[in-house]
Amino acid sequence: MHLRIIIFFAWAFQGFSLLGQEKTVAERLGYPADTKLLIIHADDLGVAHSENRASIYALEKSPVNSASIMVPCPWFPEIVAYATENPEMDLGLHLTLTSEWKYYKWGPVTSKDSVSSLIGEDGYFYPLVPDFVAHAKPEEVALELRNQIKKAYASGIDVTHLDAHMGAAASTPEHIATYMRLGKEFGLPVLLDSRIHAVDDVKIKSLLDESTVVMDYIHSILPTDFEKGSTQYYTQLLRTLKPGITCLLIHLAYDDDEMQGIAVDHPEWGAAWRQADLDFFTSKECVQLLKENDIVLVTWREIRDKITRVK
Amino acid sequence: MHLRIIIFFAWAFQGFSLLGQEKTVAERLGYPADTKLLIIHADDLGVAHSENRASIYALEKSPVNSASIMVPCPWFPEIVAYATENPEMDLGLHLTLTSEWKYYKWGPVTSKDSVSSLIGEDGYFYPLVPDFVAHAKPEEVALELRNQIKKAYASGIDVTHLDAHMGAAASTPEHIATYMRLGKEFGLPVLLDSRIHAVDDVKIKSLLDESTVVMDYIHSILPTDFEKGSTQYYTQLLRTLKPGITCLLIHLAYDDDEMQGIAVDHPEWGAAWRQADLDFFTSKECVQLLKENDIVLVTWREIRDKITRVK
Repeated sequence: MHLRIIIFFAWAFQGFSLLGQEKTVAERLGYPADTKLLIIHADDLGVAHSENRASIYALEKSPVNSASIMVPCPWFPEIVAYATENPEMDLGLHLTLTSEWKYYKWGPVTSKDSVSSLIGEDGYFYPLVPDFVAHAKPEEVALELRNQIKKAYASGIDVTHLDAHMGAAASTPEHIATYMRLGKEFGLPVLLDSRIHAVDDVKIKSLLDESTVVMDYIHSILPTDFEKGSTQYYTQLLRTLKPGITCLLIHLAYDDDEMQGIAVDHPEWGAAWRQADLDFFTSKECVQLLKENDIVLVTWREIRDKITRVK
Repeated sequence: MHLRIIIFFAWAFQGFSLLGQEKTVAERLGYPADTKLLIIHADDLGVAHSENRASIYALEKSPVNSASIMVPCPWFPEIVAYATENPEMDLGLHLTLTSEWKYYKWGPVTSKDSVSSLIGEDGYFYPLVPDFVAHAKPEEVALELRNQIKKAYASGIDVTHLDAHMGAAASTPEHIATYMRLGKEFGLPVLLDSRIHAVDDVKIKSLLDESTVVMDYIHSILPTDFEKGSTQYYTQLLRTLKPGITCLLIHLAYDDDEMQGIAVDHPEWGAAWRQADLDFFTSKECVQLLKENDIVLVTWREIRDKITRVK
């Protein structure tokens, strides 16, 4: 085939014109432009046995169709075993730079001497994002995140996407650029929303191109919503979901001794919170709501293979 | 200590008489020479929330009177909080050089580049002692163990003694010498039995002096005993306890989802095993057996303060 024709077809399949991104993500994935596309995405796999069990149950038995894994966490090997035995599952990496719980901790996968700006005096990651931002050297962030991705691949996981635990990997323009660069390096879509276009940063602007996929909406239940009831929040969300692509970030675990111990001083995103997420997304009502509202589930693997990796 | 009881501690369960010490440990602690002294010692604190909860319960509500902590494990901070709030508890360090469970892992507290001989390709400690022995460089063992002790002190724990998870820190004469030297360096008694006098090693002989405390007996239930019933084993053990000092190593946890997940492929030293230990040592029958058999409980803190640290 003539070179010019190849170039033409490459553009055609990606749905781009010289004027920019005229086609929506839905159209680029082969759906009508006004489709309500949804990724129901479980965060924090690997953090605990409770989280792993609940997330695996939901991935197998419910509309939850995607999840991401925290490579530095103690229960990572359990998810590796699951991922390698179930390669069809849509599993990405929840890039991790914080260790936020009071009594249960982890640190970098990189040798500590090489990423000393990422750890506190106790040898673990800093608990919260502001501590991380205050100390982290950009080159050490890049090294640690690259090593997390390399470890996941070395373990045999078919990584479908990258996202950022507690947003740490996307907390400054410099870290966002690293996060986007790693996506390009490994041919993986990264979780971003349309605010990325407004960031006044040369490095970020240079990374935005036809392979970039930007969510139209990212939703995650907040403490004020949780207080009013998870079912109410999610029901309303699904009933009012807008056309475009939405990533809904949820956290699944059992309200058991382990998860209660982890979130001992932290009801927000705690054991009961995660059990409530699990209860809703494994309910018949959730399935019914998706159907009634013409919501189409889509995975990161589809995005990766139909957009990110198409040249 | 669990899984493969190796080389050094494997000998211990038969018991050895004392040679070369003029006064018995009982006498040095102020008891008649023929007293039946017992340390009821819970291993593996820090390994899991289930282990921490069960061990704390037993330390507070039962004759279990001593325990040791695994510094590299994810739940170490939970035990730090307990130890610093309860400084009277008899808590030592279960020096850790292996990560033996299938789906739940940890590695060194030292920067990995400095102790690369202690870790496998996956970045964790080797699972079993023979792997550890085959790879470990003695200077890296010393560095890691010293860093575990320093981390415990920096965390605020009043360390009462040292012992060796799975016997790894006492698996070769060279590692035993390191283990004993660290005891001297920090003024801490280390778990040894009288076979130490028979080891034909100049370094070890030079470390044996009047501050060395050697257990007359070390006991720990084995799989064949567990099969016949934990209660039967411990009842018989307490009824036939001999005069002298005995250290009884037990493992306490609940037979819950977390512990079942950790010991998923390993009924030996598994969740039901640890629950059976907990059930026996928190029973009225245990208290009664100690009383009926004139058994006197003694702590590592008494040994540390009355023998090890007396010049």
